[in-house]
Amino acid sequence: MDLARGRGWCGMNDGEPMRATDGFRVPLSDIEDRTRRVQAGLRRDGIDLALVVQNVDLYYLTGSIQQGHLLVPAEGESVYLVRKNLERARRESPLPSVRSMTGLGDLPSALRALGVGASATIGLELDVMPVNLYRRYVKLLPGCVLADCSPAIREARAVKTAFELELIREAGWQADLIYQEAARVLHEGMTEIELAAHLEAVVRRAGHHGFVRFRAFNQELYHGHLISGPNAAVGSHLDTPLAGMGLTPAVAQGAGRRAIRRGEPLVMDLSGGVHGYLSDQTRVFSVGPLAGEFRDAYQVCRDIQALIVGSLIPGAGCGDLYAMALKEATRHGLAANFMGEAPYQVSFIGHGVGLEIDELPYLARGNPALLEVGNVVAIEPKLVFPGRGAVGVENTWLVTESEPEALTFTSDEIIEVA
Amino acid sequence: MDLARGRGWCGMNDGEPMRATDGFRVPLSDIEDRTRRVQAGLRRDGIDLALVVQNVDLYYLTGSIQQGHLLVPAEGESVYLVRKNLERARRESPLPSVRSMTGLGDLPSALRALGVGASATIGLELDVMPVNLYRRYVKLLPGCVLADCSPAIREARAVKTAFELELIREAGWQADLIYQEAARVLHEGMTEIELAAHLEAVVRRAGHHGFVRFRAFNQELYHGHLISGPNAAVGSHLDTPLAGMGLTPAVAQGAGRRAIRRGEPLVMDLSGGVHGYLSDQTRVFSVGPLAGEFRDAYQVCRDIQALIVGSLIPGAGCGDLYAMALKEATRHGLAANFMGEAPYQVSFIGHGVGLEIDELPYLARGNPALLEVGNVVAIEPKLVFPGRGAVGVENTWLVTESEPEALTFTSDEIIEVA
Repeated sequence: MDLARGRGWCGMNDGEPMRATDGFRVPLSDIEDRTRRVQAGLRRDGIDLALVVQNVDLYYLTGSIQQGHLLVPAEGESVYLVRKNLERARRESPLPSVRSMTGLGDLPSALRALGVGASATIGLELDVMPVNLYRRYVKLLPGCVLADCSPAIREARAVKTAFELELIREAGWQADLIYQEAARVLHEGMTEIELAAHLEAVVRRAGHHGFVRFRAFNQELYHGHLISGPNAAVGSHLDTPLAGMGLTPAVAQGAGRRAIRRGEPLVMDLSGGVHGYLSDQTRVFSVGPLAGEFRDAYQVCRDIQALIVGSLIPGAGCGDLYAMALKEATRHGLAANFMGEAPYQVSFIGHGVGLEIDELPYLARGNPALLEVGNVVAIEPKLVFPGRGAVGVENTWLVTESEPEALTFTSDEIIEVA
Repeated sequence: MDLARGRGWCGMNDGEPMRATDGFRVPLSDIEDRTRRVQAGLRRDGIDLALVVQNVDLYYLTGSIQQGHLLVPAEGESVYLVRKNLERARRESPLPSVRSMTGLGDLPSALRALGVGASATIGLELDVMPVNLYRRYVKLLPGCVLADCSPAIREARAVKTAFELELIREAGWQADLIYQEAARVLHEGMTEIELAAHLEAVVRRAGHHGFVRFRAFNQELYHGHLISGPNAAVGSHLDTPLAGMGLTPAVAQGAGRRAIRRGEPLVMDLSGGVHGYLSDQTRVFSVGPLAGEFRDAYQVCRDIQALIVGSLIPGAGCGDLYAMALKEATRHGLAANFMGEAPYQVSFIGHGVGLEIDELPYLARGNPALLEVGNVVAIEPKLVFPGRGAVGVENTWLVTESEPEALTFTSDEIIEVA
């Protein structure tokens, strides 16, 4: 891939046809690099071999999401056993060992062939694997110790490769398109869902793969949130600072049927998505000048953003960054409005972004983890004023040896349309 | 709600503004009816109380998806304990007992208050609950037996109430809009993703809540599949007869960048969605006359549909219906093309539809379950011709005392556009 094409990814700006991506393949060297980092975590956690089955983890470690198992020994080469679709897995994955499996019964002999003993410690993704499925592995591997390999995978995934960064950057440019288009079409009286549906189509045509994947149980997002006025101040079950009314209690978040009014904040928190990788960005729009109280609050969000981004360096403590943000909000007398409506506030100021929207690291209260070079984090100071509205700014950042690099590209200014 | 408004749900056909659904609420009588059926299953399975946490099950039994626990005793009234957002849960749910909880630590005393003893059998949704979360309940409830309450919930959900049926019917009308719009805009050279993005926006403006929820681990859908020519013959990891290339190996299914050509089958399997409820429907489009071989194959699909629908009566065996369909395909010499590409065929001819796209009953090989009045099933005979294309027809049906009632409304004819 060529970074220089930037916005050309989807040809939206210049009328070119969309890029054919049938030839897209994750490079083997990248998969090997990712695998080595996962293996270091497996060895640290005393796991002899990880049996990877979750879609996103499979994609990360094979380049392909098929129905099967990736066997990652603590040392040596991975083997991708695929039930369906084997041909597709072979086309999509650069791994040398992509083999057929017919069912779970094939696993014990496949493990023996890799030299894994009958009393080995086998890693499963216990943060996402349902109990009933887990019990099938318990029966299948009676002498084995079953351990959680998700920490090893999630920690490896928190440090992005150059290839991954390029896709996240592309997702950042793709998101910028949405915000440009929103500025073009937004008008007074338009409903949230009218605008959201239009922008969803724009971003899909631009190549967004559709899903905004969440790892945590019961968390779900459809592209993100486009919420206005008092609706934007309504929280939900989600672990997010904002949520909105939505169309129905069946999906109680995001755009609803409310008509957007002059002078109130319209908060857009929408993702770009390229080959599974996400960007995360929030801006405030207004039809006509934004009311002064919200303008002031938005400036506080930008100040908090500047403060955190100024400290977004390797070795910074994730919990310390959250505490710094909360302190700044408190200094402005806005602690009760910070990151949600009291008492439902979330206790983070940022989170990792990649193939899932809730990756490590969490810049959360009390988290002792330290930032590393290669972390990609969305920083999202937001303020909620119940019954009136909400504001916030969010950008996605790469932690580097020196200054953090922005991976989202839209101007941070309030976007006022006539 | 008033069935008579039918297509008027979203005002798409007559230019009316969309209906405000802020006042939508699942009726208490419906929740009580659903709860009674779940409770009968709990008693059958020896479960004293179910601790319901999964989003869709919460919506089914409370009318609201918030962060919390629904306590369903085997007899007596449910209690909805909500961490966030309590006010929203109270507004959305008609249940009399919606109470605050601050964390998991509140559960033991809440259980005691309901008369549940320290050695009771507690039901959890073990088909969807991740292992690590389950282990928190194991620690929290040390003397209790933890059992799977999902069968009781899923079996209750398989029999729809009149209220649910009205929403599924609305979803059927909503889906019809998409197919009408597709017939209006489809033209030669249009790419799958261009058409899909346009139709996704149409259905969102019509009130589709966005998600097509799948219960099974690792299964996921974005609205459905819009796939053409040889791309439609490419399978995936999904347990579906068709899948398509998609835009990327990160979501290896659905619309891709392929340009639609004259005379080839374009298969559209897209859902309607109203207040969480889904309809499921497949039709074949063609620009110009569809090539004869596909026309013939489509007729076989319609014949199989007629055969199955003619036997869609209470007491019919789910496995028998699958066997009947397979036999008919075999009689036409199409066993190797039936329900997917060999050897990756799925072994069902239909599945339940409701809040999730993979509900009970499964009309699957060897399933001894019998159809019941109130079951809603999508019947989807499909034929795949590797390297050439695929065809299929799918409608959603209600099992009644007499004839099955169609809950999807688009003509079954091949939709040819100029």
